[in-house]
Amino acid sequence: MSLKEKKNKPEAQPIVFDCTIRDGGLINKWQFSDDLVRRVFQAVNASGVDYMEIGYRASEKMFAPDEYGPWRFSKDDKIREIIGDTPLNVKMGVMVDIGRVEPEDLLPVDESPLSFVRVATYLKDIRKAISLANLINERGYESFINIMAISTVSDYELEKGLEEVEKETDVTAVSIVDSYGALMAGNVQHLVGTFRKVLERKHVGFHAHNNLQLGFANTITAIESGVKYCDATINGIGRAAGNCPLELLLSYLDDPKYSIEPVFQVLQDVFVELRKQIEWGYLLPYMITGMLNEHPRVAIALRNSEQKDNCADFYRQLTTPECYSN
Amino acid sequence: MSLKEKKNKPEAQPIVFDCTIRDGGLINKWQFSDDLVRRVFQAVNASGVDYMEIGYRASEKMFAPDEYGPWRFSKDDKIREIIGDTPLNVKMGVMVDIGRVEPEDLLPVDESPLSFVRVATYLKDIRKAISLANLINERGYESFINIMAISTVSDYELEKGLEEVEKETDVTAVSIVDSYGALMAGNVQHLVGTFRKVLERKHVGFHAHNNLQLGFANTITAIESGVKYCDATINGIGRAAGNCPLELLLSYLDDPKYSIEPVFQVLQDVFVELRKQIEWGYLLPYMITGMLNEHPRVAIALRNSEQKDNCADFYRQLTTPECYSN
Repeated sequence: MSLKEKKNKPEAQPIVFDCTIRDGGLINKWQFSDDLVRRVFQAVNASGVDYMEIGYRASEKMFAPDEYGPWRFSKDDKIREIIGDTPLNVKMGVMVDIGRVEPEDLLPVDESPLSFVRVATYLKDIRKAISLANLINERGYESFINIMAISTVSDYELEKGLEEVEKETDVTAVSIVDSYGALMAGNVQHLVGTFRKVLERKHVGFHAHNNLQLGFANTITAIESGVKYCDATINGIGRAAGNCPLELLLSYLDDPKYSIEPVFQVLQDVFVELRKQIEWGYLLPYMITGMLNEHPRVAIALRNSEQKDNCADFYRQLTTPECYSN
Repeated sequence: MSLKEKKNKPEAQPIVFDCTIRDGGLINKWQFSDDLVRRVFQAVNASGVDYMEIGYRASEKMFAPDEYGPWRFSKDDKIREIIGDTPLNVKMGVMVDIGRVEPEDLLPVDESPLSFVRVATYLKDIRKAISLANLINERGYESFINIMAISTVSDYELEKGLEEVEKETDVTAVSIVDSYGALMAGNVQHLVGTFRKVLERKHVGFHAHNNLQLGFANTITAIESGVKYCDATINGIGRAAGNCPLELLLSYLDDPKYSIEPVFQVLQDVFVELRKQIEWGYLLPYMITGMLNEHPRVAIALRNSEQKDNCADFYRQLTTPECYSN
């Protein structure tokens, strides 16, 4: 049997978005060494991955630089330091959160090493996200919007929000973000269908979480349903249960433009040690919040407590009636 | 959004097969304490899971009892010790390998605590498996056949083998076993289609491995394609990358006849410690053998060596031309 022949064909040629440092930094407040970030950048750049989101761009007025590492701010000069004189194959960019960035934090694109900026937003803040995406385009960057906590929104509100994005922005793509790691294949197909129906002139993206060991599988389902922009991180690093692993996604895509070997090399050289220092992946408290469609914050708090392994107690606590509001 | 509503409907009401001790024992030669096995049995029995495969039945002439733990042999008396006076909800059984069990190892069903026996076979040995399955039925047990290493067989040979099983046995189901952890959704759909086409009077089963983080996802795909008998293990325990986790499968099935809480309890009470002693799960050497459709034995050997974390070297070693035979 040839495995490759049995793969269902994707509808669009997917584009890979690396978020290793940006999403991984949610675990350790972006306290990565320059050496580590440089090795990740070199691996991503050599692998043929299309986009690299190296961190968040945030205002230093809002976060204390002695508490947060450099990739909470991802200053242009810092990014230049990492790139050095390496010829860029990958497009470099950052993520911005609504209300945590000031217009002066984004110089015109000609004065920056970046080529794109993604806006992370909840659906309720979509008008603010639209305004920020338009500022990003005015400054000359390619813009994207990621809609977080997608498993908590109604179809009606979602369609209304997407219609506004469709009409009022020039974003390249809008991504479905499964913040709670709660989506199953049917949800993914339904959401991609809704996004594609409304976004006639924009692409759809997908950002998975791995609470139910479905991060990679849901990304495949998304691709087969017509998603073009796929987020992934090396070794699936990311807050809580983590993300779709880049090594699996590149293996699945099996596109000659990608090379998996630089990813294995940085896995061997950097991630073996990193996994001893910080924790992410399929752990039962994250599985439980995923299955209950809850934000992982309660599970993260549990993992930072002495009861970290008491998944049965945690499950009972989250499912006893007193926990329900109303 | 209601997540449950968005789940694709299964074609058949699935039946859950626990293989925790049987498959987990492949990691540590079945050296589990009686206390651990009893707790696992109690959890599985209380959870409403339909079948529990507690170990392999093998001849003591073929394996040294001082090297292998009790669940390499799974003697009737040992199983009675574990069950004690607990009322049985679950059907108890064992797995047998071709050529590793003697007819005298299987007493008539009335003299045994077991109700089923599964035969594990490679396709090339299917005639031996048929003969063994018929012996099992003659002794009064329910019989099953698991076809291993399914990602290496041709459709033509597979159909021929399944036709013989269909005509010459009374097995309840024949299971697709993804021994190499190499299947993707398209493969699963194709294989289930082939099995269902040929096996008109028998059910189809599925046993996943998690090399590509698709153990649970492929089990869902199998169910949606018409598989009835689904293998799973608590915490996904099993050789190398492990299996479809029982806690995820029960959560997905969401059938009132199953209770997930006893599974979380044994996860908390037993598996936290067990994970510190033995290793299984998504690790890069297993991912690499999965993506290359190779037996995991080379990756298991790597994990037992000092180069255990050198996934890039391992990948190069497996993909350099000298490694190919002809």
